Amino acid sequence: MNHKGKILYIDPIGKEFEEPEMVDFLKGFTDYELNYTSLDGGTSNLEYMYYESLVIPEIVHKVKWAEENDYDGVIIGCFYDPGLYEAREITDNIVVVAPGESSMNISLSLGYKFSIIAGSEKYIPIITENIKKYGYMDKLASVKVVGLKVEEYREDLSLTEKLVMDKSKEAVQFDRAEVLILGCTAQYGIYKKIQQYTHVPVLDPIISSLKYCEFLINIKESFGWSHSKRCLYKSPPIF
Amino acid sequence: MNHKGKILYIDPIGKEFEEPEMVDFLKGFTDYELNYTSLDGGTSNLEYMYYESLVIPEIVHKVKWAEENDYDGVIIGCFYDPGLYEAREITDNIVVVAPGESSMNISLSLGYKFSIIAGSEKYIPIITENIKKYGYMDKLASVKVVGLKVEEYREDLSLTEKLVMDKSKEAVQFDRAEVLILGCTAQYGIYKKIQQYTHVPVLDPIISSLKYCEFLINIKESFGWSHSKRCLYKSPPIF
Amino acid sequence: MNHKGKILYIDPIGKEFEEPEMVDFLKGFTDYELNYTSLDGGTSNLEYMYYESLVIPEIVHKVKWAEENDYDGVIIGCFYDPGLYEAREITDNIVVVAPGESSMNISLSLGYKFSIIAGSEKYIPIITENIKKYGYMDKLASVKVVGLKVEEYREDLSLTEKLVMDKSKEAVQFDRAEVLILGCTAQYGIYKKIQQYTHVPVLDPIISSLKYCEFLINIKESFGWSHSKRCLYKSPPIF
Amino acid sequence: MNHKGKILYIDPIGKEFEEPEMVDFLKGFTDYELNYTSLDGGTSNLEYMYYESLVIPEIVHKVKWAEENDYDGVIIGCFYDPGLYEAREITDNIVVVAPGESSMNISLSLGYKFSIIAGSEKYIPIITENIKKYGYMDKLASVKVVGLKVEEYREDLSLTEKLVMDKSKEAVQFDRAEVLILGCTAQYGIYKKIQQYTHVPVLDPIISSLKYCEFLINIKESFGWSHSKRCLYKSPPIF
Amino acid sequence: MNHKGKILYIDPIGKEFEEPEMVDFLKGFTDYELNYTSLDGGTSNLEYMYYESLVIPEIVHKVKWAEENDYDGVIIGCFYDPGLYEAREITDNIVVVAPGESSMNISLSLGYKFSIIAGSEKYIPIITENIKKYGYMDKLASVKVVGLKVEEYREDLSLTEKLVMDKSKEAVQFDRAEVLILGCTAQYGIYKKIQQYTHVPVLDPIISSLKYCEFLINIKESFGWSHSKRCLYKSPPIF
Amino acid sequence: MNHKGKILYIDPIGKEFEEPEMVDFLKGFTDYELNYTSLDGGTSNLEYMYYESLVIPEIVHKVKWAEENDYDGVIIGCFYDPGLYEAREITDNIVVVAPGESSMNISLSLGYKFSIIAGSEKYIPIITENIKKYGYMDKLASVKVVGLKVEEYREDLSLTEKLVMDKSKEAVQFDRAEVLILGCTAQYGIYKKIQQYTHVPVLDPIISSLKYCEFLINIKESFGWSHSKRCLYKSPPIF
Repeated sequence: MNHKGKILYIDPIGKEFEEPEMVDFLKGFTDYELNYTSLDGGTSNLEYMYYESLVIPEIVHKVKWAEENDYDGVIIGCFYDPGLYEAREITDNIVVVAPGESSMNISLSLGYKFSIIAGSEKYIPIITENIKKYGYMDKLASVKVVGLKVEEYREDLSLTEKLVMDKSKEAVQFDRAEVLILGCTAQYGIYKKIQQYTHVPVLDPIISSLKYCEFLINIKESFGWSHSKRCLYKSPPIF
Repeated sequence: MNHKGKILYIDPIGKEFEEPEMVDFLKGFTDYELNYTSLDGGTSNLEYMYYESLVIPEIVHKVKWAEENDYDGVIIGCFYDPGLYEAREITDNIVVVAPGESSMNISLSLGYKFSIIAGSEKYIPIITENIKKYGYMDKLASVKVVGLKVEEYREDLSLTEKLVMDKSKEAVQFDRAEVLILGCTAQYGIYKKIQQYTHVPVLDPIISSLKYCEFLINIKESFGWSHSKRCLYKSPPIF
Repeated sequence: MNHKGKILYIDPIGKEFEEPEMVDFLKGFTDYELNYTSLDGGTSNLEYMYYESLVIPEIVHKVKWAEENDYDGVIIGCFYDPGLYEAREITDNIVVVAPGESSMNISLSLGYKFSIIAGSEKYIPIITENIKKYGYMDKLASVKVVGLKVEEYREDLSLTEKLVMDKSKEAVQFDRAEVLILGCTAQYGIYKKIQQYTHVPVLDPIISSLKYCEFLINIKESFGWSHSKRCLYKSPPIF
Repeated sequence: MNHKGKILYIDPIGKEFEEPEMVDFLKGFTDYELNYTSLDGGTSNLEYMYYESLVIPEIVHKVKWAEENDYDGVIIGCFYDPGLYEAREITDNIVVVAPGESSMNISLSLGYKFSIIAGSEKYIPIITENIKKYGYMDKLASVKVVGLKVEEYREDLSLTEKLVMDKSKEAVQFDRAEVLILGCTAQYGIYKKIQQYTHVPVLDPIISSLKYCEFLINIKESFGWSHSKRCLYKSPPIF
Repeated sequence: MNHKGKILYIDPIGKEFEEPEMVDFLKGFTDYELNYTSLDGGTSNLEYMYYESLVIPEIVHKVKWAEENDYDGVIIGCFYDPGLYEAREITDNIVVVAPGESSMNISLSLGYKFSIIAGSEKYIPIITENIKKYGYMDKLASVKVVGLKVEEYREDLSLTEKLVMDKSKEAVQFDRAEVLILGCTAQYGIYKKIQQYTHVPVLDPIISSLKYCEFLINIKESFGWSHSKRCLYKSPPIF
Repeated sequence: MNHKGKILYIDPIGKEFEEPEMVDFLKGFTDYELNYTSLDGGTSNLEYMYYESLVIPEIVHKVKWAEENDYDGVIIGCFYDPGLYEAREITDNIVVVAPGESSMNISLSLGYKFSIIAGSEKYIPIITENIKKYGYMDKLASVKVVGLKVEEYREDLSLTEKLVMDKSKEAVQFDRAEVLILGCTAQYGIYKKIQQYTHVPVLDPIISSLKYCEFLINIKESFGWSHSKRCLYKSPPIF
């Protein structure tokens, strides 16, 4: 099969915590060659700002490596979008996306307001700061919390689905969310059930990032519309 | 050639003002069958809210007709996005986009703030209200005015390019815009020159709408992520 | 009796759905000659954006007709204010008001925040967008929903009053509303009972629009303070 | 002549600085009996927060006196609106208005954004805080400064008009103001010339307060819509 | 003992309502000479805007007196911060603080959002307006109400503590407050128990004002960083 | 000399770029033992987000080390505040400050709005995002740019002063800034001249961070008011 190009999925967790089935899941949805990498040094989750800060340098360097190795796009596979802006800053010729920004972008045309189904209270200020940074506070219905750690999502998937369904229903019914975003990559693959249950679009964060990546690659190659180097993403001199 | 599907481009102007070369221009950028229609009754431009209101019913009915005739997506070809929400409200199974919303959505990941290069002062409150409605005020650097009517854009294209370049430069230099959006469909085709001149992404509004339409069709067909019928786009009973 | 002038009440519903008793009710509150018209083509309600778009052209043309026939003011009788800005755009010498904007304007000096008692969830994004457009989000306590369709309000008026009372009490008690606005013209005439029950001002939307219309006529005639033609309401060339 | 009722104009300056011609000017515009009072102790202007604080108690007590002496409404005659909320708090049965709030309220339906033509830079934070307090920041185009003290406005009225015209033109042309508000009561009487010059509505602050006072009296008497006593204006126990 | 300097605590209540134990409490926390004064004329509380307006002139004059009598700083001892801006306006060489602003300033670096534990509903719009004026709306989690009048706080202190604890817990648990501010000076001294109970910082408003006063004195004396006289606090000519 | 306690100044640049005179400058202003450290690996400046991300882990670990070695407070010496939130997250018993947040906090009570005098355009989105994150957008007058790189500030100090003066004057005169903040630590020591020239408070960022650090240490030790561990700064499990 001829691939359209190459996309690298960076899973910002340590090698010993890899979830290869997640990328297998993703591969079914793309005509691009999708490669996977995790980190030499890393924890099992990024629920804390400190963990994020530890892995951002390696993430960013992997993105730079990908650019130098002819990748068309990179996905930073964590809903907190660690290193997203930094990676765009030091690259010139590659698309960089992450699940948080991508899912929110996709939700914008799909309904009036979105809710995010997050793992624990700790996510709330961190995700809210990202929403503020991206400029989408007007579109936020709520951030709901299911009470699961990253490592727990896939231990008992039917329990996870049950908890996500409950909070999704609350978001739709009481916060009047019109679009739902699953706020952790470890929730991958369950969006369909939640969608059938709630009757609103439910965005899988890693599928969202893959599709948004392809979209940005497409408009970059066809029209030269890529990350502006005017100021926010202006590269430092040594690159 | 096998088309991926069908997209209808609705040009919300009267038949006597048709610009067939615009759609020929667009056809080069898509694998979809792209059809064109203008309005039975319509003016040469929609620069006024009144003109918009006159043509919205016919626009919306054309969108409904397209849905019933197996179109996958519809583009409402005016930067004011007339009838966009109404059309999404009365349809269940078709993607509806318009250049204003599409260009702004695309700009979001490309840089810190965008400027819109508009025709005349009259556009400013109307476009600003749309930006507010879509929730993107935090991302707006400025709306600049070139001082041309819709009909004048293509009379002397090199003059148009000159005027757009001047205002684009001002937007980048003084308002610190990182992405530029050409704020009238009649500015189609000149984005490349402006892009070379300003060194920031310059979004052609009709190409943006075409690409965003394809993107939304793609995620709708693959994942069922389409306009939420929860409330804002909930259909009236007679449909 | 000598009238002060003439006001036209445009009921944006089809002729077969006319409610003549509503205008009889209004006539008792004005020294102006108050005339009534409904639409040649129209539905029984405007709860959906699509319905609004269908009737706006006829509404706007009726406003223009009124201007040409020496009316001093026009009321567009629906709480969504359909065609309000468009009608102001194409007229030069007539006051145009509508219940949503008028009630909100009146509420501003009466208390800290207002709540709107609406019919169904569908109203919420539409009314909220209007509040955002008018610039009053800071003054909004809440939009409450009674769960009635427009046609149902007057079927069992005591039930309607009961439902409105309940939601009004919630708005005052929990959302700390200091002023209440009845968010549908079909709620006319019940404001007094709600006012006695809640001990806060309860604005009847059609009385509000009538009084605001008279007020704007008064300051226009005395001081020339009328809708600015600077930009937002600047008329298109053919008028 | 039979008056409709009684309105008290409180000029919050010391008796020795009275401007009787201002009230004569106002009397021509009303069917109410319009009485005038200034303060036993007071300065010649209220340009400073400290001056305001000194006179608010006497202002508020005069409002209470007016309520007890069958006045229907009171105008607190300074654009900073000193004591407006306090006066509403301690009264139950009288309308209280002031030029700042009244002019802004009137401007809301007249155009997209308003500018205020103020005396000196000192006004800017004080007036801006009032606009924020009233909730109208979204409607503000700019606060312009003519560089005159309160006492200087009427020394050379043609110079005043010239300065106000210049700043008004700037506000309309560069800040895209669609409505202008003269931001000091001492600018009374010149609105017409500015209006003819700028072609946008120019609100005289004391006429605005008079007309808004009459309007609020009218809706209070007819419908019981008066300052809500729910919370912001809830009276202290000793009254 | 050598004092670092002198601070005046102005209790804006009448002499007959003095609470000398409050200042004794404060004295334990400072190396400054801390003097106390109440008002010649004053009520037992300032829960109403009218009461505030009555005492502001005397407060402001006492601040001026303190400046002329070599005080380094003044605390205006009421959470509504009455006369704070006016006092800064008419002084040049003294630090002026008040509990509301001081507590909020201190909270800013301590956590994501703060809640204020207030006495009654009447406080809500008044305190909210102050928060808006100071620019901290983004940091507000909620204003909670314990249902006590100022005079009641110290009648049964264990009841007060119980009520404050309950509302504090609600604020932390449901509104996700990360810092709590006790919203009335009469709540002094109980912060520690609430802090132990809630495990988040609980700011005592009068200690906050004392510490912030010392801090501002310190940076003023060392670096000349004092209230800017540029515009908001620019002094009137007669001082 | 007996120190009050110990503060660590972390200069987040590489050891080869150390500026020991900066800390000598600071030592004159404190009764604490002030120690200095720079980074094992680091660049000469942090003007880019990428550079920040590279050094945050080492910064954060140094903060943790300081906590374990009985420091009372830490200053992260860069105006971008790199690692500020992460360091607060992983510590329990130490005060962590940085110049950006500290200067802005100090400015809040000193005047209506502040301007930041930054080095180059690249700073603008990064600093603006921090202001948004801290919640101070309402207080921002402008971010001005002098056009100097970090390394250039101290090459020709009189030129630097000249450039900063010019931009400071613009900020005060045209943007109506009432307080100025020098937006780069390399601008240390020149605040006094700018202050004399502009007649408004001019905050030196590193002095601000030192004084704010001492203040937070003081209230933490006396009252237990330290960084809330409720959620934003909740520590990860392994600490």
